[in-house]
Amino acid sequence: MAVNGTAVRAVTEQLPVRGVGQASLLLGVDLGGSHISAALVDQAGRILQRRKAPTAVEAGPDGIIAGIVELLREVISVSGVTRRELAGIGLGIPGLIDSSRGLSIFSPNLFWHNVQVVRPIEREFNLPTFMDNDVRCATLAEAWYGAGRGVANLICLTIGTGIGSGLMIDGQLVRGATESAGEIGHMTIEKDGPRCNCGNHGCLEALAAGPAIARRAREAIEKGVETVMLAMVGGQPDRLDAAVVTQAARQGDPVAWEIIELAALYLGIGIANYINLVNPELVIIGGGVAQAGELLLAPMRRVVGQRAMKVQAATARVVPARLGEDAGVIGAAALVLERLGEAGPSAV
Amino acid sequence: MAVNGTAVRAVTEQLPVRGVGQASLLLGVDLGGSHISAALVDQAGRILQRRKAPTAVEAGPDGIIAGIVELLREVISVSGVTRRELAGIGLGIPGLIDSSRGLSIFSPNLFWHNVQVVRPIEREFNLPTFMDNDVRCATLAEAWYGAGRGVANLICLTIGTGIGSGLMIDGQLVRGATESAGEIGHMTIEKDGPRCNCGNHGCLEALAAGPAIARRAREAIEKGVETVMLAMVGGQPDRLDAAVVTQAARQGDPVAWEIIELAALYLGIGIANYINLVNPELVIIGGGVAQAGELLLAPMRRVVGQRAMKVQAATARVVPARLGEDAGVIGAAALVLERLGEAGPSAV
Repeated sequence: MAVNGTAVRAVTEQLPVRGVGQASLLLGVDLGGSHISAALVDQAGRILQRRKAPTAVEAGPDGIIAGIVELLREVISVSGVTRRELAGIGLGIPGLIDSSRGLSIFSPNLFWHNVQVVRPIEREFNLPTFMDNDVRCATLAEAWYGAGRGVANLICLTIGTGIGSGLMIDGQLVRGATESAGEIGHMTIEKDGPRCNCGNHGCLEALAAGPAIARRAREAIEKGVETVMLAMVGGQPDRLDAAVVTQAARQGDPVAWEIIELAALYLGIGIANYINLVNPELVIIGGGVAQAGELLLAPMRRVVGQRAMKVQAATARVVPARLGEDAGVIGAAALVLERLGEAGPSAV
Repeated sequence: MAVNGTAVRAVTEQLPVRGVGQASLLLGVDLGGSHISAALVDQAGRILQRRKAPTAVEAGPDGIIAGIVELLREVISVSGVTRRELAGIGLGIPGLIDSSRGLSIFSPNLFWHNVQVVRPIEREFNLPTFMDNDVRCATLAEAWYGAGRGVANLICLTIGTGIGSGLMIDGQLVRGATESAGEIGHMTIEKDGPRCNCGNHGCLEALAAGPAIARRAREAIEKGVETVMLAMVGGQPDRLDAAVVTQAARQGDPVAWEIIELAALYLGIGIANYINLVNPELVIIGGGVAQAGELLLAPMRRVVGQRAMKVQAATARVVPARLGEDAGVIGAAALVLERLGEAGPSAV
């Protein structure tokens, strides 16, 4: 994968071969549909300083990029870090990207099409700047500093409004031929299943992401099934979300419990299919829906054990993510090391 | 992945850094449940000499290994190649393997459990000897010398009695944490589908491999549906196989056609799921069932286009394999180069 040649050279010239010397700190940006996070991160993956602001989607690409610049300026200024201490900037961007050209090809949440993201930020700060998909950034963070430390072959799933994944093989992030690897959310699990936003039918995302969980709860209530969930949302079914269903299931509500079990079944099938193909040592489960914890993970593991081949199932532990919402911004910062050819935290 | 350290050292000491010098020829062995193939192969993937013999499964591991040794001796003797011209031996073994220990862990077709394969052959010929899974060998051959030349990210499927695959990412074969990557045959496509030999339900293999295709033809005949297939097998439905169904479909038999289309639907879903995860440039289709050619490939491509995400579908061409049954033995030979750190045919 090509990276910005000039920028890399500029930095590597001033650095020793296997370290970033004086320039040992990293800036990371996690751009989401609702918020932007920016942070100063050290090479052990610790956040030293951070700022967060709402994403001004209505301001368009220029406005959002100006917002990123402002947040980064604040982080730099508050932390008192100098340019010489900084190795570079990493950007985690949702949707389709072309990292060699620094472009966001398509980001439905931001309404972006072919937006140049890297160059304006690189120019502004005169620091090597890299980008990657937000889920891949989270995967890098969990692999280097979180639940995947020391593991060379792993999958990291984020289960929230959508379902995405990052894949690491032999210690290397897998990006794919056009940087689109990892789309487990659009794995067909039921060929005649519910229609997904992508146009396909029976995608994992349409069966097991947050909105599918909320939809099943609403449907149960509409059918008149008795459940504590209705009271939990003050009698307003449109306020139901995966968090409410999870909470109800924890309280022992059988309807909510069944909905979580069904999501776990679909997720378990998707994970079993995935580990049959890439045979990882670890499957890390993160994202909002994953906050259900063992409630979701225990039945998921059972399904993986039933559905995956013996060796693959025995090899792959299924564990919760460790870095929570920070994974995105830490991973974006870590991207600087990854793209400059650092081998990860062990090289520090 | 660890390789036999001593053997590698022995060879690399006598070789220039990026070539195998005088020792430029390779021996490959493709061990199958019915036949063993052995061949002398050059670094352009051409078979210079070959021998084939039935697999004496009843003779047990020692008998089969003795058979491999005999075939290799014949190939060496007939071709007049000297030991100094040989870089090493590669073995393609079906089932589960542990290449670092030279073991066949489990091979259902051979009735093998924990059989030491590499050491006796290495000792016999005093040549560096390597092993890999047979499907991965075929993938290496197609990637380096067949349909995948010049492509860094590809999947190679073999569709026959079973369905297996090999995966290459950024020019490297993916083996997985325990050398079990690539098991697309046991991807759950229908969670309540027919029972598979592996114990799971609705595996791709149980829905679309040769036996599933033959079974559907038999079921149609048992139901009394009119089809030319019955006459083609002389009125004996137990003689039906995927080749007969393919031939009947080519002749325009609508029952056979529908059966092939259904297999293509399941295979297309499996491939779409796979390319969503690893985003390859190429999907190579080989194996006995794939001899149906465009009859199978055309509807399969249509399904991939419908089911995979846009970018992944647009990036991955679906093409037939080029090396046919030779892929296994050529790939086993190529394994010697791969394991000695040669980069592939471009390095020759």
